[in-house]
Amino acid sequence: MDRLPGFRDFYPEPLPHKDVWSADARCYIFDTWKKIAHRYGFREYDGPPLEPLELYTLKSGEEIVGQLYNFTDKGDRNVSMRPEMTPTLARMIAAHERNYRKPIKWFSIPQLFRYERQQKGRLREHFQLNADIFGEASSSADAEIICLLIDILRAFGLTAEDFVIRLSSRRAWSEFFSKRCPDPSKAYEFYQIVDKLEREEPDVSKQKLAALGFSYEEVTAFIASGEPTEELKAILDNLSARGFADFVKVDYGVIRGLAYYTGPVFEAFDRKGHFRAIAGGGRYDNLTNLISGGKFDPASNTVKGGKVDIPSLGFGMGDVVLTELLKERGLLPAFSPSADVCVLIEDETLRSQSLSAVQTLRDADFSTEYSLVPLKAEKQFKRAIELKARWTFRMEKQENGTPICIVKNMATREEHRFTSIKEAVQYFKSNF
Amino acid sequence: MDRLPGFRDFYPEPLPHKDVWSADARCYIFDTWKKIAHRYGFREYDGPPLEPLELYTLKSGEEIVGQLYNFTDKGDRNVSMRPEMTPTLARMIAAHERNYRKPIKWFSIPQLFRYERQQKGRLREHFQLNADIFGEASSSADAEIICLLIDILRAFGLTAEDFVIRLSSRRAWSEFFSKRCPDPSKAYEFYQIVDKLEREEPDVSKQKLAALGFSYEEVTAFIASGEPTEELKAILDNLSARGFADFVKVDYGVIRGLAYYTGPVFEAFDRKGHFRAIAGGGRYDNLTNLISGGKFDPASNTVKGGKVDIPSLGFGMGDVVLTELLKERGLLPAFSPSADVCVLIEDETLRSQSLSAVQTLRDADFSTEYSLVPLKAEKQFKRAIELKARWTFRMEKQENGTPICIVKNMATREEHRFTSIKEAVQYFKSNF
Repeated sequence: MDRLPGFRDFYPEPLPHKDVWSADARCYIFDTWKKIAHRYGFREYDGPPLEPLELYTLKSGEEIVGQLYNFTDKGDRNVSMRPEMTPTLARMIAAHERNYRKPIKWFSIPQLFRYERQQKGRLREHFQLNADIFGEASSSADAEIICLLIDILRAFGLTAEDFVIRLSSRRAWSEFFSKRCPDPSKAYEFYQIVDKLEREEPDVSKQKLAALGFSYEEVTAFIASGEPTEELKAILDNLSARGFADFVKVDYGVIRGLAYYTGPVFEAFDRKGHFRAIAGGGRYDNLTNLISGGKFDPASNTVKGGKVDIPSLGFGMGDVVLTELLKERGLLPAFSPSADVCVLIEDETLRSQSLSAVQTLRDADFSTEYSLVPLKAEKQFKRAIELKARWTFRMEKQENGTPICIVKNMATREEHRFTSIKEAVQYFKSNF
Repeated sequence: MDRLPGFRDFYPEPLPHKDVWSADARCYIFDTWKKIAHRYGFREYDGPPLEPLELYTLKSGEEIVGQLYNFTDKGDRNVSMRPEMTPTLARMIAAHERNYRKPIKWFSIPQLFRYERQQKGRLREHFQLNADIFGEASSSADAEIICLLIDILRAFGLTAEDFVIRLSSRRAWSEFFSKRCPDPSKAYEFYQIVDKLEREEPDVSKQKLAALGFSYEEVTAFIASGEPTEELKAILDNLSARGFADFVKVDYGVIRGLAYYTGPVFEAFDRKGHFRAIAGGGRYDNLTNLISGGKFDPASNTVKGGKVDIPSLGFGMGDVVLTELLKERGLLPAFSPSADVCVLIEDETLRSQSLSAVQTLRDADFSTEYSLVPLKAEKQFKRAIELKARWTFRMEKQENGTPICIVKNMATREEHRFTSIKEAVQYFKSNF
């Protein structure tokens, strides 16, 4: 019996097979994400991995359903495993934002799911760091979230030579669109074409753009211009003040595929261009309004009438591209089982007392290993070496029958003798 | 729009509503689980939250389906959101156990799902620590896993006065059963009745037992005897050697509901009896064999013919009962937003330089907050107090126009002045 196609098993290293993923690397990535998010004052939240289907069709229309891991549950509800976190987060924020001081800075590491029939061999789940800020309309918030993204990638050892943030503006594209097309209901279709421009054959894009009344040339000319808007300039200045100018460039070739972005948008790419985007995000000021009952108003090009209306922005960074990139650059640490102390039980008549030592060591917060069953002394010692133990601890009966405790420093092979377990643990504590 | 019934939203504290759960408490619980598991040398793994339905019906029969969150996916596969982790783990172990040194000691913190139509208001998901040992038949492994369970509960501040491990033996029950009933296919039904004995009306149990040819009196007499088997005695001696005798008692009233247990079984309960079991587990030596193609052999009362056959045992501990218990005992810490340093920007002409200071502080691994937009000095200082910042940092223009850095220790309100950001950060580093 095997796992479902598109799902992953995560094993401890060394990995037993090329077909499985490293639980240690995943843990390292999650811990790094959390550490830098905390450094920026972001707090953790989580929501359900299963949501009403409507939460996703509301903002993206019915066509999204073709990509969802959706089904009808036993209570006849149309539900979907979450394809992204932002709608859940917007729902949570809309419900309780007034209880939190602004700006709200939150992060989460959800597992996300999709089901596209046509793409065999492609993963159907991944984990994604989501970091978002609510309640701040100023572009200083956009700069802050982009800095978090940069610092997270730096924390993995990536530099400005490894990756770049391509910064763009959905607002600039929206203005470009409305100057040329009077029908705002077609805007999303237009953004989708622009989003696919780099991956699609030019002739296909040309045809699609022409169908909407746009010329391929005017679109590519706008991208080539690269002239930052005032808003983007403010973000660039902010990043420069922190010494991050080298990490970012204006690039209108980025527009983001999802419908809900309203302002600055950005994607992080490796400079070598070997991978899909490492991360992406932007400002989505209308989403809480939409989730809390608002409707799109074509005249103002915004959403109106919802119970909650709060400026929102954020990004997502998946674990799959990041893992591949770090692996390629040799930036993933090697992981192996380890222990602080190995308790060697060479005299089985002292097993009870040795177990007491194991417990005392663990109570003192040392990771402690020992052989569950009788084992030759050499094998136990060999295991201590494999586990890169800092010390071994063993008990030995003296001539008078009372046991003594012998501690060996595995780096120096020096030995120390103690008359009680307590004394030995005291020694560990003061020498750790 | 609301979340689905039976699912939880996790918010940062202070909680905005009684209907939501604490993301901070969850993180505290997960971190404690991981910390103690690492102390015992357990390594993390994970598997898919969605599995083929067959993985669960294989060992529990079709009747389990009524409790599963199962559905047919877009590829016409019968799938289920995982109701427990052990079958996934047994699948993973069966696939690659030969690549790992024995005993294999692994843990995971999966989210688990169930869907029982009749139970309104009940949660349909929870998180569960799973810790398991593979490759050790000796009861020293059973003792080790029970010690891990005890130490995890102790790490939350719970004592032998708060909880007890009720230790039993599926093997003892199996012998009890086979002495009185020749039909091993009825064993599981019998265990289920015993499992429900404490929660069911005696008359109902009486009737059910009689239908299988057992008398209620002989069953309750066996439970009352409480005589430990040799195997249980060895476990008790091992626990006593570590000073854990007070945490455990033999109690044949425990048998565990799931079909796959074969040896010692146990459950942790709060001594006041206010809650359902805090944790439960036991030995399930046949499961990898079954998962890898083996079939139940009634003659030997074991599974035979699978590709893999490895001794297995473990336990699960859910987050829901544990959270309720810790809350009741006042053992959950209070959580609030915090920062190491607050950078106060009192002179907006120094915002750029202040941003540079923010970045330098964060690069030095201090969690650092500042106001994204201009804000009155008093409000910024008040925010630093709310965040329990250890220091504030601010820049001030001297008469000659060059800025100096002023660091305030928030505990003593002492101030230090530095001519550069670098010097100030050096001061933080040496005084943290």
